[in-house]
Amino acid sequence: MVSKVTVKAPSSTANLGPGFDVFGLALDAFYDTVTLTKIKNGIKIITDDNIPTNPEKNTAGLVVKNMMKKFKIKGGIEIKIKKGIPAGYGMGSSAASAAATAVAFDKLFGLKLDGNSLVEFAGSGEKASAGTVHYDNVAASVLGGFVIVRTNPLDVIRIDPPSNLRMCVAVPTINVPKKKTKVSRGVIPKKIKLSDSILNLSNAAAIVVGFMKKDSEIIGNSIKDVIVEPARQHMIPGFIKVKENAIKAGALGVTISGAGPSVIAFSKSSADLKKISLSMTKGFTSANTKCQTVICKPSKGAADKRK
Amino acid sequence: MVSKVTVKAPSSTANLGPGFDVFGLALDAFYDTVTLTKIKNGIKIITDDNIPTNPEKNTAGLVVKNMMKKFKIKGGIEIKIKKGIPAGYGMGSSAASAAATAVAFDKLFGLKLDGNSLVEFAGSGEKASAGTVHYDNVAASVLGGFVIVRTNPLDVIRIDPPSNLRMCVAVPTINVPKKKTKVSRGVIPKKIKLSDSILNLSNAAAIVVGFMKKDSEIIGNSIKDVIVEPARQHMIPGFIKVKENAIKAGALGVTISGAGPSVIAFSKSSADLKKISLSMTKGFTSANTKCQTVICKPSKGAADKRK
Ligand SMILES: Nc1ncnc2c1ncn2[C@@H]1O[C@H](COP(=O)(O)OP(=O)(O)OP(=O)(O)O)[C@@H](O)[C@H]1O
Ligand SMILES: Nc1ncnc2c1ncn2[C@@H]1O[C@H](COP(=O)(O)OP(=O)(O)OP(=O)(O)O)[C@@H](O)[C@H]1O
Repeated sequence: MVSKVTVKAPSSTANLGPGFDVFGLALDAFYDTVTLTKIKNGIKIITDDNIPTNPEKNTAGLVVKNMMKKFKIKGGIEIKIKKGIPAGYGMGSSAASAAATAVAFDKLFGLKLDGNSLVEFAGSGEKASAGTVHYDNVAASVLGGFVIVRTNPLDVIRIDPPSNLRMCVAVPTINVPKKKTKVSRGVIPKKIKLSDSILNLSNAAAIVVGFMKKDSEIIGNSIKDVIVEPARQHMIPGFIKVKENAIKAGALGVTISGAGPSVIAFSKSSADLKKISLSMTKGFTSANTKCQTVICKPSKGAADKRK
Repeated sequence: MVSKVTVKAPSSTANLGPGFDVFGLALDAFYDTVTLTKIKNGIKIITDDNIPTNPEKNTAGLVVKNMMKKFKIKGGIEIKIKKGIPAGYGMGSSAASAAATAVAFDKLFGLKLDGNSLVEFAGSGEKASAGTVHYDNVAASVLGGFVIVRTNPLDVIRIDPPSNLRMCVAVPTINVPKKKTKVSRGVIPKKIKLSDSILNLSNAAAIVVGFMKKDSEIIGNSIKDVIVEPARQHMIPGFIKVKENAIKAGALGVTISGAGPSVIAFSKSSADLKKISLSMTKGFTSANTKCQTVICKPSKGAADKRK
C-alpha cells in the first residue's frame, strides 16, 4: 500500500493575451514539488517557503481538504511543499501547488480520476489564493501544453504546442500585494465594449488555429489583447518599454503573464532568444526595476505520464 | 481576350453563435450567379429579382465600382445577377452577389488576386446592404468552408469543415425590414459583460478546435451565444420553441443564422435530419409562422477551383 507520493507540477502562463480566464500554457521554467504522506489525522503543511501553512489558506491544503471530504477519506495527510515557482508573479505558483497536490492525492489513494476531475479539484484549491475558483493555470499545470477552459460544466481541451515554440519571461523584482490576483482582477472593467470583445475573440480563435497547426508564428502574432492588458499595464513599471523592446528584438507577441507582474514574450527556437531577454531586462531597467528572465519551452503536466 | 465571365457563390451563415462578426460558414443550400460582361461604358445591373439596380445600392454594383477604380479600368461593365439566395433572411444573400462579382471581376481582367484581396473587395460591396463593411459572409462565400475573420489588417483563416457536418436551416416567411441587418445590429448592446465575453470566447475557441479536428460534435455543442442571440431572438417569432424542438429532435446546437430571421441547427449526417427540420417547422407553426427548411452541407467557395 502506497503511503507517500511525490509529484511535481510546472509553472504556467494564463490568458496568452486575448484568452482571459480561458487559455493557459504550461511553462518548462519552474516547478513546485509536493509530497503527500498518510498520517494519523489532520492536515499538516510543511514548507521552508514563505507561504501560508494554514491548510485553508494554502492552495495545496484546500485541495487535500476538498478531496478528503469528497472521497470520504479517514486519517490525515501531511503535505510537504517545495516551491520552485516564485509566488505572486503571474506564473501560476499557487496553481502548481494545487495541481501537484491533486495528482499526488489521486495516486496516493488510487482514485484514477480523469483529467477534468483532477483539474476541478486543483481549481478548488485556488480559492485559497485568488478568492475565486479559476481553472486556467491549474488546467495547464495538471495537463501540460496548451489548454482551453470552459466552465459550467468544466470541460478542458488540451492541445500539444508546436515543438519550436519558445517563451521569454521577465519577472520583475517588485513587491507584489498579498492578494495580488484579487487586486489585479479588480482593475479589469466588468463591462467592456462589444467591439473590443470581437477583436479579442478573433485573435483568440487564431491562437487556437496556431496551436492546432503547430504554427508558432500565428500564435505569436495573435497575442493581442485590447481588454485586460490596457487595464493592468499601469501596475507593471516599464511595461510599454519592455513590450516594445521585445518586439524590436524579434519577439512575435508580448503580453502580461497571468495576473502579472511578469511579462511574457512569445517566439520561436530560431529567434535570438537571449537578445529578446536582454531587451526586456533593459526595458525594466529604464523604469528603475530589476528583473529575472527565463527562456523556456512549453511543459508537460503534473498528470502527464509521458517521458 | 475574355469579355464575359460567370461565377456562382454560395449562401453562408455568419456568427455560428458565439463568433459574432468573426465566424462564417459557406452553405451548400442556395447560390447566386453573376455574369460580368465588358461593355462600352458605365455600370449596368440586369436582374429579374427584387433587388436594387442602382449600382451604389447593390452589393455587386459597388464591388465593380470599387474594383474598376482600384485597377484603373476603363470602359464599362454589365452585371447580370440571378439570385438563388433569398435576400434578407440571414443567409448571406447580399454577400454572395458581392463574392461572385469580386471573383468574376478578378477573372475577367486576369488580376490573379489572392484570397484576402478578393474578400476585401467583396466586403466593400456589403456597404450597399448593411451600411457597414463586414467580412464574415463574404469571406465564407468567396473562400468556402469555415472562416475566421480578423480585421485591421484583414486576415482570413480558412478551415475545411468535417465531412459529416450538416445543417438544417429554417427560413421563416415573415416580412423583413428593408435595412434588416442595420436594424438587427441596432438591438445588440454596445457594452457587454466581461463574463459574457469570456463565455462566448471559450465556446468560440472550442468551435475552432472542432473544425480543426473535424469533429462535428464539438462544433455543435459549442454553438452557445450569451450575447447576440438573447438580444435578437425577440425578432424571430417562435425562436425559443424552434430551438428547443430542434435540440429535442437531435440537433447538437441551434442559433440564429447571421442577422436572422433564419434559424440554423447543426448536426451530423448520421442524425435524423428530416426529423430536425420538421421539428423546426412545428416550432414556427406554434407561433403562427410558416417556414421553408433546407438540409445542407458546407459548400466550397466562389473562388474555389476544386471540383
Ligand atoms: N501553495 C501555495 N503556493 C504559492 N502561493 C500560495 C500557496 N497557497 C497560497 N498561496 C498564496 O497565493 C498568493 C500567490 O498566488 P497568486 O494567485 O496571487 O499568484 P500566482 O499563482 O503566482 O500567479 P498567477 O495566478 O497570476 O499566475 C500568495 O499570496 C500566497 O501566499
Ligand atoms: N445583390 C444583392 N443581393 C441581395 N440583396 C441586396 C443586393 N444588393 C443590395 N441588397 C440589399 O441588401 C438587403 C439584404 O441584405 P442583408 O444584409 O440585410 O441580408 P442577407 O445578406 O440576406 O443576410 P445576412 O447578412 O444576415 O446573412 C436587401 O435590402 C437588399 O435590397
